[in-house]
Amino acid sequence: MAEYPDDLREQVEDYLEGIRFSQIPPTEGLEEAMRYSLLAGGKRIRPVLALATARSIGLDPERVLPAAASLELIHTYSLIHDDLPAMDDDELRRGMPTSHVKFGENIAILAGDALFAEAIHLFAEEQTGHPAAVLAALRELIVAAGVGGMVGGQYIDVTEFDAAAKGDWGAAVNLNASRLREMHSLKTGRLIAASVGVVLTLGETPEAETIPYRRFADELGVLFQIVDDILDVTGSDEELGKPSGSDERHGKLTYVSAYGLDKARELASESHQKARAALEGARPRTDDLIRITDFIHTRHT
Amino acid sequence: MAEYPDDLREQVEDYLEGIRFSQIPPTEGLEEAMRYSLLAGGKRIRPVLALATARSIGLDPERVLPAAASLELIHTYSLIHDDLPAMDDDELRRGMPTSHVKFGENIAILAGDALFAEAIHLFAEEQTGHPAAVLAALRELIVAAGVGGMVGGQYIDVTEFDAAAKGDWGAAVNLNASRLREMHSLKTGRLIAASVGVVLTLGETPEAETIPYRRFADELGVLFQIVDDILDVTGSDEELGKPSGSDERHGKLTYVSAYGLDKARELASESHQKARAALEGARPRTDDLIRITDFIHTRHT
Repeated sequence: MAEYPDDLREQVEDYLEGIRFSQIPPTEGLEEAMRYSLLAGGKRIRPVLALATARSIGLDPERVLPAAASLELIHTYSLIHDDLPAMDDDELRRGMPTSHVKFGENIAILAGDALFAEAIHLFAEEQTGHPAAVLAALRELIVAAGVGGMVGGQYIDVTEFDAAAKGDWGAAVNLNASRLREMHSLKTGRLIAASVGVVLTLGETPEAETIPYRRFADELGVLFQIVDDILDVTGSDEELGKPSGSDERHGKLTYVSAYGLDKARELASESHQKARAALEGARPRTDDLIRITDFIHTRHT
Repeated sequence: MAEYPDDLREQVEDYLEGIRFSQIPPTEGLEEAMRYSLLAGGKRIRPVLALATARSIGLDPERVLPAAASLELIHTYSLIHDDLPAMDDDELRRGMPTSHVKFGENIAILAGDALFAEAIHLFAEEQTGHPAAVLAALRELIVAAGVGGMVGGQYIDVTEFDAAAKGDWGAAVNLNASRLREMHSLKTGRLIAASVGVVLTLGETPEAETIPYRRFADELGVLFQIVDDILDVTGSDEELGKPSGSDERHGKLTYVSAYGLDKARELASESHQKARAALEGARPRTDDLIRITDFIHTRHT
């Protein structure tokens, strides 16, 4: 297996570390809460994908750092809100107390809101590409984060999957493998796809050349989620940074509960192959994208 | 007193009414929650200000409707999150159950998040002005909504003003009239100022000509808040659509508790005069802006 592109991850980490959100003392506590969640580590898959895509199409990765960082800010905001007591009510994330446990629920809500706003702020400061390209890329980003993407997927997860797991039979009637794919495609797939897509748009890549990248990115989102569901069952508490098996305990429909563990692993391998195959149609420098794909397939956390 | 520009308000109302957020059946319930709060009425001060500014600088108000609407979406999202149990814990808004009372806390959080995302989506679709101008206007909007604006102000309100009202003496040490102005300037002033500012930027108004408008818009934010604090004391429950005197009961620092009712009214009159005076330096067609200013000064709700 190829190694994860840690050089790109370090570039992302340094950039995130250097962002200052607060300009005045009274909002420094808000910045502290934002940074607590933003700098909690992780593989930075979305921004690293963005930088790897830049490298692949011949753009200097450094030039798309603001756009890449904004993807991570949006991802972080969504985690903070997902963890809230009214949502998944999670107390641990990557082995650390979640935002609302650490700072209180009101500050956690605001830290999420603030990360979302500052993500758009960062993106709008993006200097790569013509203003028309930046705007087009921003549209792609925000569609991926809105009702037709992340928030919509989270809504379906809460009102159908979580509700059914809690014994709401009315919510359960729509649930099947196709709805599972649809929910994940919105909730996590779109933002992962946008991590590749916005860079293609910023780089004004000719439409025809974007097709293999976009096919790759869509498949990567699927792969990511199947592996995520597998890890919830097979991972240890330490690896996950939270209690494992939580989906199973909650009786939630996942790739594993729908297909069984063996079949889910088979689906992951198929998805991994499809993602790699899609990349063959892309430009030469796809090593980093391949590394990310392999990592997502074989990761333990 | 001049009449509020209801023609512009109707234009806004029709436009908001026509927005469709959900493209697929499973997210229709999310759209319902978004529309419930978005279409709950109100004077639409921010978008009407935007349209009036357009008219004043010689732009067709219709052309800035997406930008104007996005201001109202952001305002609505902030109200939904402010009303949450972990924040102000309000059960009524404009005489109707608040979002979390009506739909549950999880849906309310997501409806707020979704309105914010769709606000940026609308704005990024804005066709008025060159892409560079749209991007610059978007930066102005998002700064007004972020840590240096609305969310930052809400953070100061929660951690200092609300905390002090609940008896936290540590939080109270920073509280004085100047901190009150600073908090409101961020929490509500910046978005009101942006309602004027983004249109100036979209219209590529020469810098020198923007000065009176920006001075006007800053003062209007101050006026709005002083009157808001007065109304909390003098308004009836019916007028406010929620129990009056809530700031007073909570022992919160406001313009009225800091200065007394008479002095607060005097400050409002001064601010009203300053806002009108600033407009004298603006281009000829300021009638609608004057109407809005007079309305804000003398409104009952």
